[in-house]
Amino acid sequence: MAILFFYTNYFKTPKFFSKFAQNRKHMSKGITKRAENYSRWYNDIVQKAELAENSGVRGSMVIKPYGYAIWEKMKEQLDKMFKQTGHVNAYFPLFIPKSYFGREAAHVDGFAKECAVVTHYRLKDDGNGGIEVDENAKLEEELIVRPTSETIIWSTYKKWIQSYRDLPILVNQWANVVRWEMRTRLFLRTAEFLWQEGHTAHATQQEAEEETRKMLEVYAEFAEKWMAMPVVKGHKTEGERFAGALDTLSIEALMQDGKALQAGTSHFLGQNFAKAFDVKFADKTGNEEYVWATSWGVSTRLMGALIMAHSDDNGLVLPPKLAPLQVVIVPIYKTDEQLNQIREVVTGIMQKLQDKGVSVKFDDRDTQRPGFKFSEYELKGVPIRFAIGPKDLEKGTIEVARRDTLEKKAYPMEGIEENVMQLLDEIQENIYQKALKFRKEHTHKADSYDEFKELIEKNAGFVLAHYDGTPETEKRINEETKATVRCIPLDQPAEEGKCMITGKPVSHRAVFAKAY
Amino acid sequence: MAILFFYTNYFKTPKFFSKFAQNRKHMSKGITKRAENYSRWYNDIVQKAELAENSGVRGSMVIKPYGYAIWEKMKEQLDKMFKQTGHVNAYFPLFIPKSYFGREAAHVDGFAKECAVVTHYRLKDDGNGGIEVDENAKLEEELIVRPTSETIIWSTYKKWIQSYRDLPILVNQWANVVRWEMRTRLFLRTAEFLWQEGHTAHATQQEAEEETRKMLEVYAEFAEKWMAMPVVKGHKTEGERFAGALDTLSIEALMQDGKALQAGTSHFLGQNFAKAFDVKFADKTGNEEYVWATSWGVSTRLMGALIMAHSDDNGLVLPPKLAPLQVVIVPIYKTDEQLNQIREVVTGIMQKLQDKGVSVKFDDRDTQRPGFKFSEYELKGVPIRFAIGPKDLEKGTIEVARRDTLEKKAYPMEGIEENVMQLLDEIQENIYQKALKFRKEHTHKADSYDEFKELIEKNAGFVLAHYDGTPETEKRINEETKATVRCIPLDQPAEEGKCMITGKPVSHRAVFAKAY
Repeated sequence: MAILFFYTNYFKTPKFFSKFAQNRKHMSKGITKRAENYSRWYNDIVQKAELAENSGVRGSMVIKPYGYAIWEKMKEQLDKMFKQTGHVNAYFPLFIPKSYFGREAAHVDGFAKECAVVTHYRLKDDGNGGIEVDENAKLEEELIVRPTSETIIWSTYKKWIQSYRDLPILVNQWANVVRWEMRTRLFLRTAEFLWQEGHTAHATQQEAEEETRKMLEVYAEFAEKWMAMPVVKGHKTEGERFAGALDTLSIEALMQDGKALQAGTSHFLGQNFAKAFDVKFADKTGNEEYVWATSWGVSTRLMGALIMAHSDDNGLVLPPKLAPLQVVIVPIYKTDEQLNQIREVVTGIMQKLQDKGVSVKFDDRDTQRPGFKFSEYELKGVPIRFAIGPKDLEKGTIEVARRDTLEKKAYPMEGIEENVMQLLDEIQENIYQKALKFRKEHTHKADSYDEFKELIEKNAGFVLAHYDGTPETEKRINEETKATVRCIPLDQPAEEGKCMITGKPVSHRAVFAKAY
Repeated sequence: MAILFFYTNYFKTPKFFSKFAQNRKHMSKGITKRAENYSRWYNDIVQKAELAENSGVRGSMVIKPYGYAIWEKMKEQLDKMFKQTGHVNAYFPLFIPKSYFGREAAHVDGFAKECAVVTHYRLKDDGNGGIEVDENAKLEEELIVRPTSETIIWSTYKKWIQSYRDLPILVNQWANVVRWEMRTRLFLRTAEFLWQEGHTAHATQQEAEEETRKMLEVYAEFAEKWMAMPVVKGHKTEGERFAGALDTLSIEALMQDGKALQAGTSHFLGQNFAKAFDVKFADKTGNEEYVWATSWGVSTRLMGALIMAHSDDNGLVLPPKLAPLQVVIVPIYKTDEQLNQIREVVTGIMQKLQDKGVSVKFDDRDTQRPGFKFSEYELKGVPIRFAIGPKDLEKGTIEVARRDTLEKKAYPMEGIEENVMQLLDEIQENIYQKALKFRKEHTHKADSYDEFKELIEKNAGFVLAHYDGTPETEKRINEETKATVRCIPLDQPAEEGKCMITGKPVSHRAVFAKAY
């Protein structure tokens, strides 16, 4: 929220207007540079790479085909990982009766407030050629468009669970949800977004805690191996916990502007929802006990993280494993005869690549020149670009350009598919290493509050510091610096120290940063 | 609607109560028989095979994991077929501003009436520990939860289309939609349902008409080759057309109770939505023209069709291509040693089947007896069941039961994977042929209105008859017999005749039936 507020005021300054004039020039050629205006750079990429756009509906986006194709690749891999860990998919209603929310006290505070509320179920002619809400079709009980599905799902689990034989329940749902956000940004914060939400039910606390941790590991593996985005795994503090959870784990990624982005969360819900919806099971001895629960989710917000983690001033940079198009082939020719010769060679090459599972496209549009095509595929983050002209045909070579490094190199046509496979792996690894290096360079320890404030002030990235863990100290730090505690990292050796504010002894450092 | 009304009144009769007592008995063993009560048979299958259930939200269902797994298989195949025909996926907002609906006159009449309407965006404490709608958070313009997305999508296409170079747009969306139905039935008619909706934009009328037909063929191929369900392809009459379409094509399937089910529709929308949302393109000569449109969709209703087309009094019958689980292996044993011996053999067999892409499960639960398991998998429609006991180990055989014919036969273990592959194909084909035979036996020509009424009265199935094509005649037939015109079939030779009501000369027969 802090960043958005800042950004909004910025529009009103004269500096903004002069920047704007400057940026118009850039936009005609390409996109705003990161160093100039990071927010506008992000918006430019989302729009010019045709990932998403705002719709006529406040806060709701249209996910365009190219953006959706990336999301589909994410979904496909995540879904596979969920199934490999024993989960199945199901589907629960979009609407939740208002009364369901009231059942879990913490949950209602966190979620029931900024929601879309359905109050009527019919429209009628307004007598002036338009339509209006039919006041005779008012619902007895209002329906909430789900902001998350714990309540509707646990009201269902009550019917599914009687005995220990019915446990565990390991269910996931792919769905749309709505949270009424006042300030929205494409992918990062929208009123409606797409996500998956896992909701599991267990016989023991230990099993539920293990599930919480297991799914965090699935998210971390996905982020690092598929999105090529290093993440810090850790516990959220009480103030940042999911409404209704006893513990929230998250993965936190660092963006190129030094701000953190929470990329996925996994919650240990204890018996809170089981108690709220009276879900008990009989154990082997016949004793009745409340069921233990977890929930976990990632959303289209990951698209925002993916964009901001890797892209550069030329546009989107996609890790090969999530690129809808991995290789594009651009012919360089003057005559139709040349194009036909190129096409003949390309057909064979494409077949070899497709046999290896590589997605490849031959862009033989005659309406655009090669230079235009080069920029377009750079903007869209296609990992590998081939250029093939008459001289390449003579020499039996292909000019291969890598999107991540922008390097060009000639490769022999013979065996090009092997080189492509190797290059795709190299690019995937290079993007990850680059992001990891960036994070290392932008992770600092602060041993005093002054040092801390200075680092946060200049958006230095993750700041590791000791603090006493109280909500009061957290609040003060946030009010004074706009930084938040991102998490208490899981994989971190103990390091005794004193709270930078109150001086109380603390055993571990927490990770702070300004955040999306 | 007719059937549902009938069914509801039926509950109040003494006959119902005696039937109910009778059915309790059946339910304890299995499910209601089709001949006894077809509607209850359907509900029993949906519930006992764990496909779906009603939720606490009026008219909204919960799709349970097993039901969702079948839907996922359907989605996967349809999505592949859409992509093979050049389509891409995208995502548009759930909410549609009320004013968008008013723009296309026919569309608003058909769709804007029975809709869920969002009027507020916040809840607050009611002061009594509950929550209530915050009247200060009233939307200026109400939002409609999409019943279908033509209006929001064409308001977006206005931004996407300027020139002939931007066409065609071949976009599909997988989404949830809501239509406020007063009488609902699991899968067949629910307030919220899942579907896909294709929305395409073209430069010429011819191209749009070809697209409409192409997608109908995709649906027909999916229905016949994957669902093993024969369908009649045809034009809808004016009265049954999609609101806003110039032509609606549909595929119509025949259920086992002699009623028809519309399984998919493909609409030629002409320039209606382009005009309503002012979407023009410049052709090669610079002339501006309105864009031509199509839309097409299938929904979770297909699940209802799949269930009713093939299932029997023992439960669900699934075509192997859509079965989440194709082979189940049940061990028959008395001692742990026997079980271990069976498990050893089964491990090798499972590997061979999985290598062939067959989904297989070894059910070694010790909490249930083999007989219980047999019934369970019959109920769930698993195409092939293996039983393996100590004698089978001695003889090197497996007892193989087919779900479609309920036949059992011993097969040698050696090479069982080849036999399974062949059996799966045979079952897929047999289910289709059985449904096709049923349809042939339940398709009749009527050459007089009396003959027609008699056939409809006894739910004889599809009735082919001549009628004059006017809405008045259609209405009269419907009022007097409850039958509707399903379609005017595409692949039908001309057959001169006279309208059975008015005697006017007509060149083709139409297909009539009572319908879901």
